[in-house]
Amino acid sequence: MHLFHCPDLASDAVELPPEEAHHALAVLRLRAGDRVGLLDGRGTKALGELIGLAKRSVTARVLERRLLPPERAARIQLAVAPTKQMERFEWFVEKAVEVGVDRIIPIRTERTERSALRHDRLLRVAVAAMKQSQRAWLPEIAPLMPLEALLADAPAQRFFGWCQPGLRSLMAAYRADGDALLAIGPEGDFTEAEAERLRGAGAEGVALGAARLRTETAALAACTWMSLSQQR
Amino acid sequence: MHLFHCPDLASDAVELPPEEAHHALAVLRLRAGDRVGLLDGRGTKALGELIGLAKRSVTARVLERRLLPPERAARIQLAVAPTKQMERFEWFVEKAVEVGVDRIIPIRTERTERSALRHDRLLRVAVAAMKQSQRAWLPEIAPLMPLEALLADAPAQRFFGWCQPGLRSLMAAYRADGDALLAIGPEGDFTEAEAERLRGAGAEGVALGAARLRTETAALAACTWMSLSQQR
Repeated sequence: MHLFHCPDLASDAVELPPEEAHHALAVLRLRAGDRVGLLDGRGTKALGELIGLAKRSVTARVLERRLLPPERAARIQLAVAPTKQMERFEWFVEKAVEVGVDRIIPIRTERTERSALRHDRLLRVAVAAMKQSQRAWLPEIAPLMPLEALLADAPAQRFFGWCQPGLRSLMAAYRADGDALLAIGPEGDFTEAEAERLRGAGAEGVALGAARLRTETAALAACTWMSLSQQR
Repeated sequence: MHLFHCPDLASDAVELPPEEAHHALAVLRLRAGDRVGLLDGRGTKALGELIGLAKRSVTARVLERRLLPPERAARIQLAVAPTKQMERFEWFVEKAVEVGVDRIIPIRTERTERSALRHDRLLRVAVAAMKQSQRAWLPEIAPLMPLEALLADAPAQRFFGWCQPGLRSLMAAYRADGDALLAIGPEGDFTEAEAERLRGAGAEGVALGAARLRTETAALAACTWMSLSQQR
């Protein structure tokens, strides 16, 4: 059954967002009476029946709702400096949502290679990945923010990937029973000054293994470790 | 310093493979006397100096060699049914090499969506990823093989990703101190008969968490878990 993202599933008759409506009409060519799955991204999975199909709008009657609990007991936040190639960052967002993440925060650092980010595109990738992995919860995609703003209200466990010898590994440091934030720097890494600020804010520099990883690879590897650690 | 893959670093003067030579000449426009890094993919990192540059060939004098031990005490083998979209499989190969893997085995299963595979392309992706992550060891990319051939000489730890409730997770089952092989099926998973054959060959069906993951996502998540588990 086809899944659609429908942020508001509260009423009995709901309207699909324009993009989802277009997909249902132009791509899938669904008809009145067709059954569809509806996800609001906030834990609700619903069974719907299409009732009103106009040129650009699709209305569905909600036949039944299920509210699913959050997947993780402990939240996982990944703060990542966007890569020069947008597709690599979008790839990270897709995979992180599939593997399991609660919040993705693009960060601006001294060496970040992008000053702007198409937030709508990242959101679209995240929604597609949520549907692909049949999740009811849509991770938050935060707007691009400076490192400082990131640390304003971070959870107790704070890490940042840091390419230096002698550091404890994330695998040794991360406790799966607590909320955590991990920051991954750009190609070229965080500057010494940024690492100082991160440490000053109570973040621990951790290693992710011996090899030099691309930004998006390191971010996904860390996300995978934290998410799977909670599902042992 | 630019890195090049040069399978034979035994002699004092070595010739770069055609593709690497083209890259050095046409893309990087290197000159005689330039210093380069050379990787044979079998543990040797060498410092070279370019001496002979012809139209299509590049020769380097090997100034010094270092033989690096294998990265992992226990080998990690990933057997994966290639995806319909080749780029998704190439993406998996790139990321798996970055994160750490010893052998990637494309497998033909009943529901595998590709009957043929451009092995040379996968190899090129693996070489690029080895250079990117500055590794001296190039993982083996096996030719596409049927499930049966896979199990012929598999290590003691044998797992396969299996989308069924009640299974132990890979995270609970995998022991980082032993060689392991994990098989990931195609979209649509292994058939019951294939799962039976896998179990018959001593492979344990394991879960990778609650969410439904794409083939390439599941394969990389498993690879990441096993590789990082060895680097705690």
